[in-house]
Amino acid sequence: MSRFFNVRFLASVVLSAALSVCSNVWVSYAAEPKSESELFPKNATILFQGDSITDGNRGRNLDPNHILGHGYAFLVASALGGRNPEMNWTFLNRGVSGDTVLEMRRRWDEDTISLKPDVLSVLIGVNDYWRGESAEEYRAAFDELLAYTKEKLPNTKLVVVEPFATLETPRKEGAKIRDYQDAARDLAKKYGAVYVLTQDMYNERVANEPSPKYWIWDGVHPTYSGHWLLYEAWLKAVKEAE
Amino acid sequence: MSRFFNVRFLASVVLSAALSVCSNVWVSYAAEPKSESELFPKNATILFQGDSITDGNRGRNLDPNHILGHGYAFLVASALGGRNPEMNWTFLNRGVSGDTVLEMRRRWDEDTISLKPDVLSVLIGVNDYWRGESAEEYRAAFDELLAYTKEKLPNTKLVVVEPFATLETPRKEGAKIRDYQDAARDLAKKYGAVYVLTQDMYNERVANEPSPKYWIWDGVHPTYSGHWLLYEAWLKAVKEAE
Repeated sequence: MSRFFNVRFLASVVLSAALSVCSNVWVSYAAEPKSESELFPKNATILFQGDSITDGNRGRNLDPNHILGHGYAFLVASALGGRNPEMNWTFLNRGVSGDTVLEMRRRWDEDTISLKPDVLSVLIGVNDYWRGESAEEYRAAFDELLAYTKEKLPNTKLVVVEPFATLETPRKEGAKIRDYQDAARDLAKKYGAVYVLTQDMYNERVANEPSPKYWIWDGVHPTYSGHWLLYEAWLKAVKEAE
Repeated sequence: MSRFFNVRFLASVVLSAALSVCSNVWVSYAAEPKSESELFPKNATILFQGDSITDGNRGRNLDPNHILGHGYAFLVASALGGRNPEMNWTFLNRGVSGDTVLEMRRRWDEDTISLKPDVLSVLIGVNDYWRGESAEEYRAAFDELLAYTKEKLPNTKLVVVEPFATLETPRKEGAKIRDYQDAARDLAKKYGAVYVLTQDMYNERVANEPSPKYWIWDGVHPTYSGHWLLYEAWLKAVKEAE
């Protein structure tokens, strides 16, 4: 027993020394991402907004079994809530299936402003791209929405998730998803939002892994595996933000 | 630059040596848990069965947006599917809200046997405890169900999740959740199933963390944070199994 103790003790000293040297060297190269408990203040409310990808068939009453739907919003809430109970965060979802940015705007006072979230995450645009507004109209409407939000909730931290689609043929004539993404990225920058990149991540997976449908079954909606990627991307972007 | 390189190289050699010493010492104490890709064969189907805790308001058609509900089944599928695409696993959920073990038995041929899962995970018992069978009846019915399953699906790997409840007053007179748990644990052993412990984990969290409702909002149904604990416990038990 004492031989094991000595070997383990020695190993532990050597290991600590090695790690200490490493961290001193590495710290000058890259800022450390935030730890999870540093992400939001204690008792913070985090609200997810968007269309069907956010909605995830969430319950429409207060039954806590189903309020987050099945998707990345549930994954973020479940992981962060399960791993950081001392922070006592509350996660809400007000995604509504089918919404364009203008349709979401109509319910914004009730579904966002009145909830006074500390963090607001928005994923919107694929319905505009598919059947709704042009990229220019989408940009103008999303700009107005974020300006209004900043005015009403000046202290709310914003997260904008890049809208994505892996459909080869968009249904709205001439629309290019990249134009909608350019708008979302520009507006994230304009309003100081964390921007979560998604399209390149999905393109790479869809091209290389078992089948495109493994990740995004209809070109728009992620599967359970695809939502995991979205969860990972969301968390990484929020952790790496200033 | 070359000074950094030398320090990092030296640190890396020392670190490798230290880790090598540690692993040689530790390996005799504990077998390594399986890596995720070793858990199930390539192309395996993993089926979740049970009551409302498994159901999670899953969709009843084939729409892949909602087929897994929002709960631990979705979390397991999303995490394992997202992290191990090369294994091409398929996750199914056939939990039905409100079911006792006898009610689940009535739909077993259609909802379990005909799906020929490679892995079958069952969480059942809280409705028996609450309003259904006595612990003795539960034991007999669950025994028959697992014997039948073994006969029809001899190569299917079984996982039994311990039923749990944090209600102080059970609604079925005189019922004790521990009696139902004893039955589930004994049967897991009898049929060679992985057994996932849950009650002690929830008891500890409910006693110590922000509030009991943070984890299990009504004494029976976990919240999004509570489902994360169930996901972690499920994955740990399956990884540590022989």
